[in-house]
Amino acid sequence: MTSTSESSTHSPVETAAVVAHGRIDVGDAVERVRAAADRAGVELVDEENAQLVVAVGGDGTILRTLARLLGTGVPVIGVNFGRVGFLASIAPERLEEDLARVFAGEYRTIEQPTLEARLGGKEFVAVNDVVATSSTLGRMIELGWAIAGEDLGVVSCDGMICSTPSGSTAYNLSNGGPVLVRGLDAMAITFIAPHSLDARPLVVPRGAELTVRNATPDVGAAVLADGHRTGDLEPEQALSIRLGEGRSLLATLPETTFFRRYRETFTS
Amino acid sequence: MTSTSESSTHSPVETAAVVAHGRIDVGDAVERVRAAADRAGVELVDEENAQLVVAVGGDGTILRTLARLLGTGVPVIGVNFGRVGFLASIAPERLEEDLARVFAGEYRTIEQPTLEARLGGKEFVAVNDVVATSSTLGRMIELGWAIAGEDLGVVSCDGMICSTPSGSTAYNLSNGGPVLVRGLDAMAITFIAPHSLDARPLVVPRGAELTVRNATPDVGAAVLADGHRTGDLEPEQALSIRLGEGRSLLATLPETTFFRRYRETFTS
Amino acid sequence: MTSTSESSTHSPVETAAVVAHGRIDVGDAVERVRAAADRAGVELVDEENAQLVVAVGGDGTILRTLARLLGTGVPVIGVNFGRVGFLASIAPERLEEDLARVFAGEYRTIEQPTLEARLGGKEFVAVNDVVATSSTLGRMIELGWAIAGEDLGVVSCDGMICSTPSGSTAYNLSNGGPVLVRGLDAMAITFIAPHSLDARPLVVPRGAELTVRNATPDVGAAVLADGHRTGDLEPEQALSIRLGEGRSLLATLPETTFFRRYRETFTS
Amino acid sequence: MTSTSESSTHSPVETAAVVAHGRIDVGDAVERVRAAADRAGVELVDEENAQLVVAVGGDGTILRTLARLLGTGVPVIGVNFGRVGFLASIAPERLEEDLARVFAGEYRTIEQPTLEARLGGKEFVAVNDVVATSSTLGRMIELGWAIAGEDLGVVSCDGMICSTPSGSTAYNLSNGGPVLVRGLDAMAITFIAPHSLDARPLVVPRGAELTVRNATPDVGAAVLADGHRTGDLEPEQALSIRLGEGRSLLATLPETTFFRRYRETFTS
Repeated sequence: MTSTSESSTHSPVETAAVVAHGRIDVGDAVERVRAAADRAGVELVDEENAQLVVAVGGDGTILRTLARLLGTGVPVIGVNFGRVGFLASIAPERLEEDLARVFAGEYRTIEQPTLEARLGGKEFVAVNDVVATSSTLGRMIELGWAIAGEDLGVVSCDGMICSTPSGSTAYNLSNGGPVLVRGLDAMAITFIAPHSLDARPLVVPRGAELTVRNATPDVGAAVLADGHRTGDLEPEQALSIRLGEGRSLLATLPETTFFRRYRETFTS
Repeated sequence: MTSTSESSTHSPVETAAVVAHGRIDVGDAVERVRAAADRAGVELVDEENAQLVVAVGGDGTILRTLARLLGTGVPVIGVNFGRVGFLASIAPERLEEDLARVFAGEYRTIEQPTLEARLGGKEFVAVNDVVATSSTLGRMIELGWAIAGEDLGVVSCDGMICSTPSGSTAYNLSNGGPVLVRGLDAMAITFIAPHSLDARPLVVPRGAELTVRNATPDVGAAVLADGHRTGDLEPEQALSIRLGEGRSLLATLPETTFFRRYRETFTS
Repeated sequence: MTSTSESSTHSPVETAAVVAHGRIDVGDAVERVRAAADRAGVELVDEENAQLVVAVGGDGTILRTLARLLGTGVPVIGVNFGRVGFLASIAPERLEEDLARVFAGEYRTIEQPTLEARLGGKEFVAVNDVVATSSTLGRMIELGWAIAGEDLGVVSCDGMICSTPSGSTAYNLSNGGPVLVRGLDAMAITFIAPHSLDARPLVVPRGAELTVRNATPDVGAAVLADGHRTGDLEPEQALSIRLGEGRSLLATLPETTFFRRYRETFTS
Repeated sequence: MTSTSESSTHSPVETAAVVAHGRIDVGDAVERVRAAADRAGVELVDEENAQLVVAVGGDGTILRTLARLLGTGVPVIGVNFGRVGFLASIAPERLEEDLARVFAGEYRTIEQPTLEARLGGKEFVAVNDVVATSSTLGRMIELGWAIAGEDLGVVSCDGMICSTPSGSTAYNLSNGGPVLVRGLDAMAITFIAPHSLDARPLVVPRGAELTVRNATPDVGAAVLADGHRTGDLEPEQALSIRLGEGRSLLATLPETTFFRRYRETFTS
């Protein structure tokens, strides 16, 4: 949206890496990426030394790759083998022709805010979202919360989602949170199944830290970053989350705009 | 709401039972109930032989007692030691004076629909709700669903709630489902965190059976009845739920109407 | 859903009427209906003397025809020229072949609850919904409400919708109300843009009357029945609504079930 | 939230103005403000020459005053005589003691984004929101919309709200939009009673312009800025809205933080 956050002119790619881990069966896609690189004269190297990383899998694969490469300046482009695929811009059946364009420099990069979280002395980052959720099936938890140091009370709920703009179309949206359009430097806070009727999604600017405390005497909570469990929020323990310094660097085809993705994924 | 579903004139109680199990600390409340019974000349007997059962604890305690007594015609009145207490009508600090009134016959009984469910050859009932939910933290499931035999497609979600009117103000409400006012002979179907934007709560009349199928190849789901895990919904397995023949029989103070409870619990 | 509310075996139609008023341009559809009747040996007569009425237009046309024929036992089938067309089961391009089937007796009739309302001594009915809404653009109103005589307080809002199952997929759904599946004998109450966070949709059984009072000192409200203004709710005036004795009688093609309509109209 | 947007140390006020127009009866409040000014040695002058303006009335009065003073650097503090009063920080019963503190320099000023809109050659600003809404009771409109030049399709609805953070707790919230916390430089876009199920609130960063087109052939729409009708959106006409250059300058008591206001107004 702003001149600094997106860029769409690139030199031809000279070095790339391909990544395909995770639960999803991607068939011979990695071989097809290698062949496409070969045809384009692109040398396949380690992630750290690549100009571009091709992530083959679902949104989870792309998220993990984006998180791992934070701060390196190496963009990640996704080939979608998952169910949703909001982050991926290349469909498997178009792998050869779309990668040919990308390797010729025809792609855009999008810098997006990430989250930094602290939990019991441990720090971690997330590209999409950090979630605190009851770890006992069928048991609500009570979460005390504060923003920028100001106490906002306690909410009985299944959990809470703190989401970047990138994550706003994922679990946040499923729980009634708003869509944060690309370019926004903010995070959304949305409760999961709040039992109080007055809990509403909030959008918080950079600089305001969210603190979440497990106020349930007897039920533990799990903390997930980008869908992966990173720790536990024991009774009375606190988790803090804020917009981080690092920015994720997603590459897409030039025509794959945010709104086009949104329309294709969510509207009929 | 209708003449058959509520009754508020009763003879004095001659035999009662007291129940207090569960996770909640109720202090000396059971002793206080016994003393109140003694003063009122009420004989304490087994549940099955009682005219009225006094359940001391949270909504969970009352729900389990109501379910156990389905079909016996024995009503259950609750003394609230839990967080929410929508079902209980007696506050701990008014235990003595309110029970004196109840033992004198001053209470109403409310018949409410229940759910009958079948899962892999096993049948069970629920007073409030039956929930099918992902049993893996951070993993969505895909649920195929049908009503009255008509296929309604597949929804990516965290789970689904099928709720009676009694349960409509509990987990159903937390997930955006409607309040079903007492007297309605219907069940509400509400998805938990649906990823498709077009999933909306439905209210279904008696006679229409809901079928829920776990359409996720690799993630199991848990099935909970009134908050307690009763089984698992493995990939491709189906769960069916319909309004049951049995009706729960809740007793309340005459002044504790549905709307009074609703206002006290949910509105500011 | 129940044996009495739907019927799908009919004798061939001998007399029919065709109705096409309203704002919508239906081209030569009325001529095409007449020709189809002629081919099937169906005599075109007045509405009151017809076995079946064919309503050509949008949902509004069908609603008005259903309301006019309440109590006559004459069913109404719709040919859809409107934007939404949830009630109509015949598409314009299939008019000839579908009407041939209908005139041969191949249709179902669906009895559905209606609403009876009273406003200042005037009584009226509605097939879909009764709405009380601010009549001044940009001004909220305060509505006091009660169900079955029990006061439920005052809500600042743009208005309130009371809807039958038939109307539940119309304006009620747009405002976050639940879908009431065919066969349910209930009405939904949903606020329009409530400013209090705790207003939630309610579903109310037959026998419970809703009373709505304009508690705004200085802003009038309009009352609409099936989208048409039937009167005004001046400050301190009250409107009462309950499920009515009359039932609307919609005819559809046998294959046009509720859920099929719902899927086609709302889901992607 | 950021160092530039709020300031809480001020010199004692030397010149002030008092404003009290609108529909609301404020009794002798203007006299009480004059007396308080007199006691504090504050000279009452014209708005343009004042260091601070005291607006007595409801949120509408404060909004109009904020809008009129855009670009002047003169802050506005509100004394609340209205129903909601989210913007006002002084309650009538504390007028004397709170104004004494304010005149002594004990207040904070909060700079907030505003909206700039264009409609048929006419430009206007809004402090809270710009709304396009059907001007015919009971008639939906179809709104075509685009963000940053990208077409987002057509939505059948009653209208659309474009809101600043300041306006996010007003009509936007009533229609399910998110709360934009103070300090956020963004606008929220929320549909009013959308008939399509996939319309969700969006939050858009500075620099992205929203265009709204009335795609209804036969129903006009009204355009309201801060609740006041500023023009009409005839069929096929377009309205454009973006975050404006001017920032509104609200003054509050130092302890009246955003979250305190939010809790007091909306949560139980």
